[in-house]
Amino acid sequence: MTALQSREFSLPVRVYIEDTDAGGIVYYVNYLKYFERARTEYMRSLGYDKPAFPGDDLMFVVSEANVSYQSPARLDESITVTARITNTGAATLTFAQTVLRGATCLVNGQVTLALVNSEDGRPRRLPATLRQKVADS
Amino acid sequence: MTALQSREFSLPVRVYIEDTDAGGIVYYVNYLKYFERARTEYMRSLGYDKPAFPGDDLMFVVSEANVSYQSPARLDESITVTARITNTGAATLTFAQTVLRGATCLVNGQVTLALVNSEDGRPRRLPATLRQKVADS
Amino acid sequence: MTALQSREFSLPVRVYIEDTDAGGIVYYVNYLKYFERARTEYMRSLGYDKPAFPGDDLMFVVSEANVSYQSPARLDESITVTARITNTGAATLTFAQTVLRGATCLVNGQVTLALVNSEDGRPRRLPATLRQKVADS
Amino acid sequence: MTALQSREFSLPVRVYIEDTDAGGIVYYVNYLKYFERARTEYMRSLGYDKPAFPGDDLMFVVSEANVSYQSPARLDESITVTARITNTGAATLTFAQTVLRGATCLVNGQVTLALVNSEDGRPRRLPATLRQKVADS
Repeated sequence: MTALQSREFSLPVRVYIEDTDAGGIVYYVNYLKYFERARTEYMRSLGYDKPAFPGDDLMFVVSEANVSYQSPARLDESITVTARITNTGAATLTFAQTVLRGATCLVNGQVTLALVNSEDGRPRRLPATLRQKVADS
Repeated sequence: MTALQSREFSLPVRVYIEDTDAGGIVYYVNYLKYFERARTEYMRSLGYDKPAFPGDDLMFVVSEANVSYQSPARLDESITVTARITNTGAATLTFAQTVLRGATCLVNGQVTLALVNSEDGRPRRLPATLRQKVADS
Repeated sequence: MTALQSREFSLPVRVYIEDTDAGGIVYYVNYLKYFERARTEYMRSLGYDKPAFPGDDLMFVVSEANVSYQSPARLDESITVTARITNTGAATLTFAQTVLRGATCLVNGQVTLALVNSEDGRPRRLPATLRQKVADS
Repeated sequence: MTALQSREFSLPVRVYIEDTDAGGIVYYVNYLKYFERARTEYMRSLGYDKPAFPGDDLMFVVSEANVSYQSPARLDESITVTARITNTGAATLTFAQTVLRGATCLVNGQVTLALVNSEDGRPRRLPATLRQKVADS
């Protein structure tokens, strides 16, 4: 088994009032929602209609998230959220993610997903087809 | 079957940054979350450990919500949220709800819950025990 | 002053995990976020870059929201959210809104916005240019 | 200037439907909201009525958040969220945080706040009174 990397996937996102807080900027917690939308659409682009459930009894859960905040996004801005797989384990996918205003990085992070059995929560090996799709992307 | 009314149940709520928006006030959508917390704790006070699931295969869903906004709550305020059953149907509970700062009403609304079968979503009669507990409250 | 109506504006929305709840469906509170996204994009289509702040010292606030829930949207669905102005007052805009799966209405509601002075919160007359843009849309 | 540590502050939290997702568990993003509630109440316990704004023109912003997920919290559970300052810099506070079910750690993380000028966003030294209050806590 070799570690796989993917291309970088980009998703345009509009900042709505629901995303902001009393500081007038995007509530820092909500960037994690943006990150997930980009991961989800990347998986959908690989052919997964239900990206969080990539097979019978299979479910992705987040096992770790690390986020670094440089500069805030603001109401009504049009921003870009990226997702790129930088590492794979037997049962895990690690994404490098960014939130960009044009070429400026506002937020970056790393999120690791673990594939588990949706019944008992135990780790499950990434299916070969999924690994192949990631490698081809 | 007679329409039942309950006492008014009160829940103290603190406003956190997660609740606010770029206007510096509580995001109006989030008062519906406050309303639900008060309904949930009212049901818990009646002895329901899982208030949204008051019996085998039974689930409450919201069928209607009407909210009127008079004045906003602000970050770090300590407010009170109330819930009172004003009407019951064969399969429904209607709550009158308010958000108060001291004696001042900031938001008021009416929320109707329907009891359904959690498998097929069909309406189910309110159990007699539930009706009794509401009447006694 | 005559009451104005607008065309119906439609916005495609994807359901993400952030939108769902333990019932496996969209958390009913979150349809109000969808409604607001559609209203915001409708206003943006009229030329307002900051739809919630349509002029110096002017701000829209929600004064009333009534929502009726027929059927739930589910994770990963692609739905449509509509917004149409059905009534205008001196300082208010009332929108009829729906959430659709294809031609099936899942949720519908009515939301009234009031234009206020952002400093003192007092009602302000809708600017003639805004009324004209709505009438022309 | 010496690095300061605080006692561990604990906040009881109830899991509501608003906190859950389609997996039937707390949406992983929302633990960051729980973390913030505990930090906020810790600061309030030190005498700060507006914990995010601990002085004129001063504002705390999150500069880094690292979260590790071991086991999920579920609807209607009563959990405990902790906050403890483990490190201080000239302009930063670093908190170690956990979410506990009884003695079992479900989620743990580390969140760094930076004190900035609320006008220009520039880092500002932690006031001596704040450092003293942390040291005494």
